[in-house]
Amino acid sequence: MRCEVLAIGTELLLGQIVDTNSAWIGEQLALYGIDNFEHRALGDNQTRIVAAIRDMLTRTDSLIVCGGLGPTQDDLTRDAIAEVMNVDLVRDDALAESIAAMFKVRLRDMPQNNLRQADIPAGGAAIPNPIGTAPGLRCEVDGKVIYAVPGVPYEMQKMITEQVLPDLLARSGETSVITSRALKTWGTSESALAEMVAHRLDALEAVGNPTIAFLARGIEGLVVRVTAKGRDAADADAIVAAEESELRVILGDLVFGIDDQTMEYAVLDRLRTRGWTLGVAESLTGGLISSRIVNVPGASDVFRGSVVSYATDVKRDVLDVAAPSVVSEDAAREMAEGVRRLLQCDVAIAATGVAGPTEQDGVAVGTVCFAIALPGVAVETVTTRMPGDRDRIRQFATISVMNLLRLRLDGIAAQPWR
Amino acid sequence: MRCEVLAIGTELLLGQIVDTNSAWIGEQLALYGIDNFEHRALGDNQTRIVAAIRDMLTRTDSLIVCGGLGPTQDDLTRDAIAEVMNVDLVRDDALAESIAAMFKVRLRDMPQNNLRQADIPAGGAAIPNPIGTAPGLRCEVDGKVIYAVPGVPYEMQKMITEQVLPDLLARSGETSVITSRALKTWGTSESALAEMVAHRLDALEAVGNPTIAFLARGIEGLVVRVTAKGRDAADADAIVAAEESELRVILGDLVFGIDDQTMEYAVLDRLRTRGWTLGVAESLTGGLISSRIVNVPGASDVFRGSVVSYATDVKRDVLDVAAPSVVSEDAAREMAEGVRRLLQCDVAIAATGVAGPTEQDGVAVGTVCFAIALPGVAVETVTTRMPGDRDRIRQFATISVMNLLRLRLDGIAAQPWR
Repeated sequence: MRCEVLAIGTELLLGQIVDTNSAWIGEQLALYGIDNFEHRALGDNQTRIVAAIRDMLTRTDSLIVCGGLGPTQDDLTRDAIAEVMNVDLVRDDALAESIAAMFKVRLRDMPQNNLRQADIPAGGAAIPNPIGTAPGLRCEVDGKVIYAVPGVPYEMQKMITEQVLPDLLARSGETSVITSRALKTWGTSESALAEMVAHRLDALEAVGNPTIAFLARGIEGLVVRVTAKGRDAADADAIVAAEESELRVILGDLVFGIDDQTMEYAVLDRLRTRGWTLGVAESLTGGLISSRIVNVPGASDVFRGSVVSYATDVKRDVLDVAAPSVVSEDAAREMAEGVRRLLQCDVAIAATGVAGPTEQDGVAVGTVCFAIALPGVAVETVTTRMPGDRDRIRQFATISVMNLLRLRLDGIAAQPWR
Repeated sequence: MRCEVLAIGTELLLGQIVDTNSAWIGEQLALYGIDNFEHRALGDNQTRIVAAIRDMLTRTDSLIVCGGLGPTQDDLTRDAIAEVMNVDLVRDDALAESIAAMFKVRLRDMPQNNLRQADIPAGGAAIPNPIGTAPGLRCEVDGKVIYAVPGVPYEMQKMITEQVLPDLLARSGETSVITSRALKTWGTSESALAEMVAHRLDALEAVGNPTIAFLARGIEGLVVRVTAKGRDAADADAIVAAEESELRVILGDLVFGIDDQTMEYAVLDRLRTRGWTLGVAESLTGGLISSRIVNVPGASDVFRGSVVSYATDVKRDVLDVAAPSVVSEDAAREMAEGVRRLLQCDVAIAATGVAGPTEQDGVAVGTVCFAIALPGVAVETVTTRMPGDRDRIRQFATISVMNLLRLRLDGIAAQPWR
């Protein structure tokens, strides 16, 4: 089964928005084993849209058209598909009523234009959109299928996941079910990770199921994704679970979470279990550690706050740092102790270092010192060197200090990067 | 003149990376008045790349191929262009030497593969890449021109700006010069902004030069971009400057900066001029305000630090907040006063509010209270309501409180949103 993607919208060509939809759809198609060889983006021009659909259909079995389903005269996807099918648009009265009802619920007047969204190419079918006014379309032409989905990302994603992919899979004659799991890791490089997993890749290559992929996600970590095909959901889940077990033995404590779990989630979860509160002392990260932590729902159970001691005076006066160099393990230790005292928390982490662009007091760019203060034990410190520019050094310092805390909470000695 | 964009890389189709390059190139082409009607992305497959180039050249005068210029067997852009031109690849010895020299300077051994990057389709020309090993290509076929540029964003951007766009403009017979200026605004909605500027849009429509566009850039503000065409650079600059003056009269203090100037730059710049230091007290923003401020080069001259008082106890114990409700103007005032005292700074800003997802102590989601403490005057406070979800409320609170400080430093009373 082959499926291509066509994104519609002049704003994409003008660079006013970046097309993240096509990447997302491409990822889903790959996940479900559907071949996808081309993404295309065009402006709001019916002649060009019609020509592109016709051209793409000469090579593909199916096509997802994304965007151009809005209510205005610029929204031409419906008209273009009707032209490709050589049919008229027909108003679907039930659909028109449901669109009008949606406006009524929201206590808003419906512009008459919105009824255009109830127009369907004759012979095609509407795909319901429970969270927006623009229905999708499923239209067949010469034994091939065109899906039209809205350009609003969450409406598009819901429609693709719940309606388009199952339909595509059914058409492909594929009866198996696909499941995937992301093992999120931190603490080693992509090439080292690939080396560790190499013998699993070799072992799986012969079978072809499950498959393993590596994805570098920046501050979200390095992801090892396992994708399995099964007779049914339970079968696919079992295959993924078996491979996850194998990988967890190899990767050990490098794995900090699965799927949507972030490093800050992993840390807060472990602290919550122990009933411990957290405080942060930041310098080079300038508030980035704290701002990541508060993104976790329910962070307020655990997180008390932080002190961003950017100026040396603030480190000395507010956090009682006495170490001669403010980029040193001693300074990091005193920052952690100081913030724990000030914010009255059980656990404190601290990061001080040189984000660049130039060295500071003879300390090289990328040098970062961390401290982890836990109840009842001596504060642990570590020095590391981060790669990259100012922004990347900050991001890596942020995930690394949280990873250190995670490892310490699991009883493993601090070792920032192997 | 028409120019299309073809991005190469299987990782784009798989959604492992989002194609931001095509959007950036599209924006540049629009800025220079070059028609751009199609973006396409393909994987690392020579047959498909050749077919797409041939197809696109039937409609366009010129084509930018982005990516696939690396040293590995997967990098097929050179081979594909040679096939389209029906010529062989020829090794450019001078280019090979300069690639080898680049490795020598970096004290690294050059893999033999890298010499592939010195292969040029016969009759084509290399475009120098001063910041990477992959040279670009400029190749003519049937009176049309194909440019190949690296996929690494900063290498691509430098090559497009310095080499491709001037060449495209020369080929288009266009002798005029294009200049643009972004006026960055905060404090009103996109539709209100459009209404304010409507009569300028009408006045300019007849002339067609300069043009005005609106771009919503989230935490970077709402941008009003003026683009002018002139006989030469001085002429274009004069046209932009004249329109900028007109717009500044209309927009007044909504404009916080131009081009790459951020809100935090505007604030730090004004504080530095006065020799004042800054401290921040954050609650709902969780460190986001501070982390934006430290992104400004030289922030350490002005920024002393911040206290993220996420827990109510921390507000009370560390910042001496006595107000009964911690989401109130009184609490914001006490946070600003507390952090100014603690960090010994001249100026302090504070933000407290409800980021959601649920209301807090009867205060609605989106409610945010700000305080601005300046030397020698009473602390000013203001309450506002931010739209959107948790993340957007935080982002809007961050730019809004900095905007308030900017306005106050310019002697204008606090008014967060009109």
